[in-house]
Amino acid sequence: MREHEAAVRALRQTVADLHTELTRYDLVTWTAGNVSARVPGADLMVIKPSGVSYDDLGPESMVVTDLHGELVEGDFAPSSDTAAHAYVYRHMPEVGGVVHTHSSYATAWAARGEPIPCVLTMIADEFGGDIPVGPFAMIGDDSIGRGIVETLRENRSSAVLMRSHGPFTVGKDARAAVKAAVMLEDVAKTVHFAYQLGTPEPIDRASVDRLHERYQNVYGQ
Amino acid sequence: MREHEAAVRALRQTVADLHTELTRYDLVTWTAGNVSARVPGADLMVIKPSGVSYDDLGPESMVVTDLHGELVEGDFAPSSDTAAHAYVYRHMPEVGGVVHTHSSYATAWAARGEPIPCVLTMIADEFGGDIPVGPFAMIGDDSIGRGIVETLRENRSSAVLMRSHGPFTVGKDARAAVKAAVMLEDVAKTVHFAYQLGTPEPIDRASVDRLHERYQNVYGQ
Amino acid sequence: MREHEAAVRALRQTVADLHTELTRYDLVTWTAGNVSARVPGADLMVIKPSGVSYDDLGPESMVVTDLHGELVEGDFAPSSDTAAHAYVYRHMPEVGGVVHTHSSYATAWAARGEPIPCVLTMIADEFGGDIPVGPFAMIGDDSIGRGIVETLRENRSSAVLMRSHGPFTVGKDARAAVKAAVMLEDVAKTVHFAYQLGTPEPIDRASVDRLHERYQNVYGQ
Amino acid sequence: MREHEAAVRALRQTVADLHTELTRYDLVTWTAGNVSARVPGADLMVIKPSGVSYDDLGPESMVVTDLHGELVEGDFAPSSDTAAHAYVYRHMPEVGGVVHTHSSYATAWAARGEPIPCVLTMIADEFGGDIPVGPFAMIGDDSIGRGIVETLRENRSSAVLMRSHGPFTVGKDARAAVKAAVMLEDVAKTVHFAYQLGTPEPIDRASVDRLHERYQNVYGQ
Repeated sequence: MREHEAAVRALRQTVADLHTELTRYDLVTWTAGNVSARVPGADLMVIKPSGVSYDDLGPESMVVTDLHGELVEGDFAPSSDTAAHAYVYRHMPEVGGVVHTHSSYATAWAARGEPIPCVLTMIADEFGGDIPVGPFAMIGDDSIGRGIVETLRENRSSAVLMRSHGPFTVGKDARAAVKAAVMLEDVAKTVHFAYQLGTPEPIDRASVDRLHERYQNVYGQ
Repeated sequence: MREHEAAVRALRQTVADLHTELTRYDLVTWTAGNVSARVPGADLMVIKPSGVSYDDLGPESMVVTDLHGELVEGDFAPSSDTAAHAYVYRHMPEVGGVVHTHSSYATAWAARGEPIPCVLTMIADEFGGDIPVGPFAMIGDDSIGRGIVETLRENRSSAVLMRSHGPFTVGKDARAAVKAAVMLEDVAKTVHFAYQLGTPEPIDRASVDRLHERYQNVYGQ
Repeated sequence: MREHEAAVRALRQTVADLHTELTRYDLVTWTAGNVSARVPGADLMVIKPSGVSYDDLGPESMVVTDLHGELVEGDFAPSSDTAAHAYVYRHMPEVGGVVHTHSSYATAWAARGEPIPCVLTMIADEFGGDIPVGPFAMIGDDSIGRGIVETLRENRSSAVLMRSHGPFTVGKDARAAVKAAVMLEDVAKTVHFAYQLGTPEPIDRASVDRLHERYQNVYGQ
Repeated sequence: MREHEAAVRALRQTVADLHTELTRYDLVTWTAGNVSARVPGADLMVIKPSGVSYDDLGPESMVVTDLHGELVEGDFAPSSDTAAHAYVYRHMPEVGGVVHTHSSYATAWAARGEPIPCVLTMIADEFGGDIPVGPFAMIGDDSIGRGIVETLRENRSSAVLMRSHGPFTVGKDARAAVKAAVMLEDVAKTVHFAYQLGTPEPIDRASVDRLHERYQNVYGQ
């Protein structure tokens, strides 16, 4: 742990700060949503404590666990979703950040067990196709983590809608996973609105591929 | 009253502060919603004054009544819903806090007289099953209080949707009742969205029981 | 005008302040909504200037006109809805405040030309029955004012939904009219939600009468 | 460029400030929306940099390009929508500002490829008729710009809903284009609500013409 001290200190700040994006974009209610980050090069992650108000989150209240969810450092019990985050880090080495919310529109798709169809250029850009549904899974063991990983492996989406529960998103780091959570709710909402008054047409596969490719490689600085 | 002075002083602050959660989560409009707290070990409660703006609420504007709603201390008339709160405290000794709002999605279910079905893990966690509907009852006597108590006694839900009116929630203390009011609107909204485009599947009873048990006993610090 | 100087000065402040309630409750977009107040005992009113941003409104930017909408005092042209406000003051002596918005849910009912049915106790309390629709009327002469007055005279509602346009509300003073505008959008939204998934039952007339009577006479301080 | 230095400096501030209206009215998520302004009398425009957070936008982070989107001044790569803005400035000399968002309700109409019908006086006022749909067009060449220009040329609307993508708005300057983007989302939302529970009646053409004429010439200061 000593050798990763500086990285952990920085990630405590980053992960605490990123929770303010969850409240800013109305993705979470009361204490129900969490961000984690993998500590690069270590079998460690930084995650939100369980049941603590977003107002009271600072770097010092973040919790460090190993990749089986065992507490390594911190004054609080880790998020009750820690096992799911840890499972993702163990099985998806390319993932550096995980986010879980119950954001309303994404969770409504999850409640019906329906993927969000790729009917917007923004979905093609960020998610590369339909946003998939994962299985219904009980909290308390590896079921949720396994459901996330198995669903994401078959897709290029960075988001999965866990059935009757809510979305999980992943990214190369915690910020990218938060971005995916924000974009997910935005498109879940817009596509919900679109279907309320008709049936939007899907974008053809070749255009989806070109949009996704371009956005992943050209967009930004 | 003298022996409970310190408790009353603390609860005046707590109850005033908790009203800011009602506005933060958009559960109330103008002056239409209220929080109360039982004074532990006394036949007293602290409650919002009637028709006072949330901007103007501080500890000093809170009102103390007995458990029949008679004014004991305070410069203002108590909330017009005081009789309902008082009835709940008289008949549910385990309840330490009561909240009433007209939050939009929960009130829409109440307008139709439809329980919110348990189609989300968050509903199982917090409410332990479908969220029930109470009878239509006129303000001015014990009708509303009786409707709340009779409905909640037959359920493990901490929320009841009073028909054509709006939700009441209860908790072991005022903060827990506010949390229930916030979670209620969140799930009322998400399930509303889910039903707008299809029919979400209910979670089976055994899973609901396991989720509720775990959340009530393991979640948080 | 000299004799009403103090009243005008106070109302400039009041009317400017009340516009912040319109933005707080999301009733207005850009510059599209306005509050006015009658100057008691005078044939004068204080109203918002036309096309000025809500950020830039202070007591000094308010405009004073007579009850035919002619400018009496002020550095700006009065609201383009001034004629409608003035008509109401000329024909409804009991009215001391008028508000116009294009708040989204109320305007959606207005677009369909459908009254909002009295299916919630809050509607009975504040509006005393269904919230009525007024005629389609062009801006530029007395058509809008006449439509408001003729509709409100046949109802005890303090709000009218002007067809294909948006709501107007009235009150004994400007604050009461703003309160009505806020409550209107709240119930327009909740009843919209209720009808999206079914058909809420109307409250019987006797109960509506009792609720309205009580709320108008007992509620508040 | 030297001769336009003062104009560019002022527009950097204006364009940066106008982005705060996009976030204030919830028209944009994360970094997905942009404002530009033509530099009067020059073949230059000021535009948002690509993928930069709205929190971090100031005058100094704005980018200056020519009207083919080539970087002229600035520390960042220009918005990935720069080619579309530039095409509009090249082909519509009366346009001084362009805005692009993915605002939810407008984008839902765009996803279905349905124009927003002129059923509200506010639509007649600001847009002069139905708000038209533009073609599906890929990013990366002149397709989007051409689609915008061809659609707007056949309409007096200041907004176009680009199919499966989102809205673009134009104005005589950047502020007018932002106003159109704000009004567009407002009417897209209200008309969405109206159609959810029925079929609003269109305003007849003569009334639309009179409303539009009046609003464009009489409204404001």
